[in-house]
Amino acid sequence: MRDAYHEELDSIGDGLVEMARLVGSAIGRATTALLDADLKIAESVIAADERVDAIQRDLENRSIDLLARQQPVATDLRIVVTGLRMSADLERSGDLARHVAKLARLRFPQSAVPADLHSTVLEMGQLAQRLMSKAAEVIISKDVEAALQLEADDDRMDELHRTLFQRLLDDRWKHGIETAVDVTLCGRYYERFADHAVSVAKRVVYLVTGEHADERGTASLPGPIAGTIGGSGGETDGDA
Amino acid sequence: MRDAYHEELDSIGDGLVEMARLVGSAIGRATTALLDADLKIAESVIAADERVDAIQRDLENRSIDLLARQQPVATDLRIVVTGLRMSADLERSGDLARHVAKLARLRFPQSAVPADLHSTVLEMGQLAQRLMSKAAEVIISKDVEAALQLEADDDRMDELHRTLFQRLLDDRWKHGIETAVDVTLCGRYYERFADHAVSVAKRVVYLVTGEHADERGTASLPGPIAGTIGGSGGETDGDA
Repeated sequence: MRDAYHEELDSIGDGLVEMARLVGSAIGRATTALLDADLKIAESVIAADERVDAIQRDLENRSIDLLARQQPVATDLRIVVTGLRMSADLERSGDLARHVAKLARLRFPQSAVPADLHSTVLEMGQLAQRLMSKAAEVIISKDVEAALQLEADDDRMDELHRTLFQRLLDDRWKHGIETAVDVTLCGRYYERFADHAVSVAKRVVYLVTGEHADERGTASLPGPIAGTIGGSGGETDGDA
Repeated sequence: MRDAYHEELDSIGDGLVEMARLVGSAIGRATTALLDADLKIAESVIAADERVDAIQRDLENRSIDLLARQQPVATDLRIVVTGLRMSADLERSGDLARHVAKLARLRFPQSAVPADLHSTVLEMGQLAQRLMSKAAEVIISKDVEAALQLEADDDRMDELHRTLFQRLLDDRWKHGIETAVDVTLCGRYYERFADHAVSVAKRVVYLVTGEHADERGTASLPGPIAGTIGGSGGETDGDA
């Protein structure tokens, strides 16, 4: 039978998954609003970000209360601190989706994205949503291989971002400065959103293995060293 | 005589001040590199960001070890968690200064900023550095009024950012798309840097008063409710 501590840890993990699902949905819907110049969807994304912020604050309070109620060893602290960092990544992702939606709203009834860039931006939006969806899965599954895979998927985002810039900087760009500015900012929003999804996945790797994803080789994975949200574990060194 | 806990808390506070000073210096030097097309300074800013990241990791480890060595009440946890959030803001600020420097390096031997925008960008860089310098002071002084003042100063950054956009979107813009993209990204880096400085100051307000800066009225300030880095205090509610 699970003790109260692990129940609460699981519940905090559930909160992180909920945040990831909300912001993944938000970036998808914001992309639709942007490309279709859909004001209603844009407004709904902007309004819905308040819920993401509220969950983040709640998770933070609950994390602190949880630690205050027991004698935490360093491992427990690292788990909860890592969870707090994940919630900060997810909250920031929500903000980025909101920025995309605000741009859609600003340029309504036009689309901020010219027709010849629609497919590139669509792919960026879809990829961002997929990355966040995988990040949510990884929080639940604690599958380290899947978590490490996100970083490879993120390479595609970098390619798309470069494509966007190449088109912007091409002599044949005919859409003017305002659109160039809009597209530049959008590209950055999607790129940063993807960074945060990858960051969330890397923190899961850290929770499971006790090692930072950047420092790991491609050798076979060690067994769980550190505790995880929902799991148990022993002492760990290295930084959170 | 101060106990070991408060000594270590003070030391963590010192680490935050050091980070703030380093990133404040970085944004100033990055601005010089950008406007003067100075490759050496750009390279030094890029290299120096590693130190900022290293301090952040060290503060995180020390924070966790500190809490593990004693029975933390909720207040202690909030202090340390708030310190961790401040170090994350400061680390991200260092990244933004590094982005400015990378842009300077990318466009060398040209300046990425056209001559007629130099004074605007210069003012943004100087303001960013000043805001971070004040944030560092506020960490030391715990002066709530000074901390709240940063948000007012940040209004000037928003004005400058708008000026930049107005110039970009003016029909008479003659510098082409690449420069428009560069200036757009730069404007965003400075704006986000300032946001992080304000965020650091707001967290000091929270540490001192137990209330979030956004929720406070302009009534006279309550006395210290929560503990602070370097101080002592009692129970608090509200979120970190």
